[in-house]
Amino acid sequence: MDVVQNFREYRAKMNEIILAEDNLFFKRFYNLDSRTYEDGALSAQVKEMLGLVASLVLRCDDCVKYHIEKCHELKVDRKQFFEILSVANLVGGSIVIPHTRRAVEYWDLLDAKK
Amino acid sequence: MDVVQNFREYRAKMNEIILAEDNLFFKRFYNLDSRTYEDGALSAQVKEMLGLVASLVLRCDDCVKYHIEKCHELKVDRKQFFEILSVANLVGGSIVIPHTRRAVEYWDLLDAKK
Amino acid sequence: MDVVQNFREYRAKMNEIILAEDNLFFKRFYNLDSRTYEDGALSAQVKEMLGLVASLVLRCDDCVKYHIEKCHELKVDRKQFFEILSVANLVGGSIVIPHTRRAVEYWDLLDAKK
Amino acid sequence: MDVVQNFREYRAKMNEIILAEDNLFFKRFYNLDSRTYEDGALSAQVKEMLGLVASLVLRCDDCVKYHIEKCHELKVDRKQFFEILSVANLVGGSIVIPHTRRAVEYWDLLDAKK
Amino acid sequence: MDVVQNFREYRAKMNEIILAEDNLFFKRFYNLDSRTYEDGALSAQVKEMLGLVASLVLRCDDCVKYHIEKCHELKVDRKQFFEILSVANLVGGSIVIPHTRRAVEYWDLLDAKK
Amino acid sequence: MDVVQNFREYRAKMNEIILAEDNLFFKRFYNLDSRTYEDGALSAQVKEMLGLVASLVLRCDDCVKYHIEKCHELKVDRKQFFEILSVANLVGGSIVIPHTRRAVEYWDLLDAKK
Repeated sequence: MDVVQNFREYRAKMNEIILAEDNLFFKRFYNLDSRTYEDGALSAQVKEMLGLVASLVLRCDDCVKYHIEKCHELKVDRKQFFEILSVANLVGGSIVIPHTRRAVEYWDLLDAKK
Repeated sequence: MDVVQNFREYRAKMNEIILAEDNLFFKRFYNLDSRTYEDGALSAQVKEMLGLVASLVLRCDDCVKYHIEKCHELKVDRKQFFEILSVANLVGGSIVIPHTRRAVEYWDLLDAKK
Repeated sequence: MDVVQNFREYRAKMNEIILAEDNLFFKRFYNLDSRTYEDGALSAQVKEMLGLVASLVLRCDDCVKYHIEKCHELKVDRKQFFEILSVANLVGGSIVIPHTRRAVEYWDLLDAKK
Repeated sequence: MDVVQNFREYRAKMNEIILAEDNLFFKRFYNLDSRTYEDGALSAQVKEMLGLVASLVLRCDDCVKYHIEKCHELKVDRKQFFEILSVANLVGGSIVIPHTRRAVEYWDLLDAKK
Repeated sequence: MDVVQNFREYRAKMNEIILAEDNLFFKRFYNLDSRTYEDGALSAQVKEMLGLVASLVLRCDDCVKYHIEKCHELKVDRKQFFEILSVANLVGGSIVIPHTRRAVEYWDLLDAKK
Repeated sequence: MDVVQNFREYRAKMNEIILAEDNLFFKRFYNLDSRTYEDGALSAQVKEMLGLVASLVLRCDDCVKYHIEKCHELKVDRKQFFEILSVANLVGGSIVIPHTRRAVEYWDLLDAKK
């Protein structure tokens, strides 16, 4: 099973179902979600790092995966990635460790895909 | 695999083991848990909606599934369900999105079962 | 000191400063925030109850105060208010108790104002 | 102002109002709350330490104060108190530090009262 | 599949990768993590119970498993284990129930291994 | 009352008491805390932004104040500050709004001090 591909497909499929619903909130919220990470006073790269550390301390594995993909794409390197993980573990404590394990595993899966 | 059936059986089996234990706390807590959602000044339907939104913002997938089953049973409709999801995403932020995906998937599984 | 008045004024003053900022996110997010609680498939009253229980389990005192004001305004009665508090304490546990104390105190301040 | 006395009086006053309400949930929940910390397979002292560490990682200052009072009363000593704080900071991360400051201050206020 | 063995191996493998990284934070944080639970003014047994209840209320299943292993090893008995679960459910609320089910299941798997 | 000065003094006083305690954990944890934000693969400025967004979504007002001071000192400008706030509100939801109000107020107090 391709974990990365699987994650992307489930995400895409369910987002499509949610956006197909006649519900204005989700259309706006998803739109806000993608626009917030665009280049502005801060670069998209820094914003994705912010999104990643926030997702880590809130311990949302799927959000972590998503922002790892973005960081990876935007040329955050492995040393920088580990420093983001450090801040997350310091601020959020040892309960972040299991999410750190899964984050590192996912990063390595992306590296292996290149 | 029947995801709905699977969830119900695991839940029932483990609850039985916990209640079989000679521990007064769990007997009382489980009792309190079911009585709190009964009709009162607020209807059981409204209370299950409250239970659902609380479970969503606290991001407890199994609690979400349980309250979705109850809401579904008590005739909350799909449009109302999506408005509960909207409040949860607004209050709890984008980290609620992955739980929203799983919630919608579970709702659709229940619909398919009817 | 008028606690209710104080809360409202600080909230209004700071919201004004935030919205005066040239930042599109906050304009949209605040707009989304107020529209989500409007009448729809669920009534504004039920949605404010959802907002209240979500704020209680996430233990955000200022959010609790805000939704108490709205519930109070939309004719949620005291018995119903206590049932919302019950669901919040059940789902969120005894750490919700201190917030419950402050919530009841605020409700009573609003009652005294009428 | 006597911070300790103030905390106790507000707590007592509001609990009285909540329990005076005709709401069965709160009577049972408060009862469950006090009984859970009684001597059992674990001593009341150990249970209060568990209550303290749980309150610290969930960052509920009023709950922390309450359990500090109980730990203090049940002869937890200062070295042990700091080890509870250590576990809480390790597990919950640096966001527990501000609560640790207030916890130490409260402990010292109790010491000064003896 | 041996759930216990599986958990231990994944944990060990990923910790090794993280510590192999040239990152001083993780070396120090992991070191701090293990030393905090050593005998001191409080016994290692009490500290592992503190670690368990903290992990339960923060709802970190992998952390819960880890501290269950330690508690089991340090002769916490089943009645005591259920009292730790009681405090966690009281303080953290009904959202801790699904984690309690998985915790009891894991405890029983360890018992079966002996 | 000088809010900024007050915060700094309380923080310094209590940290001194905690570090004066004969407890190795806190000496190491505080040391780890300050070193994690030093220049490395990521600049101190980016790391303080990471610390700020993490503190915001975990809704720790004192941590927010501390990282605001550092960001301010390291020349994060007001437009960038508002983009950090945007990510925090998006990821953490409307419960972050009250903390955003206090964060903006604190930022303006620091500006006024210059």
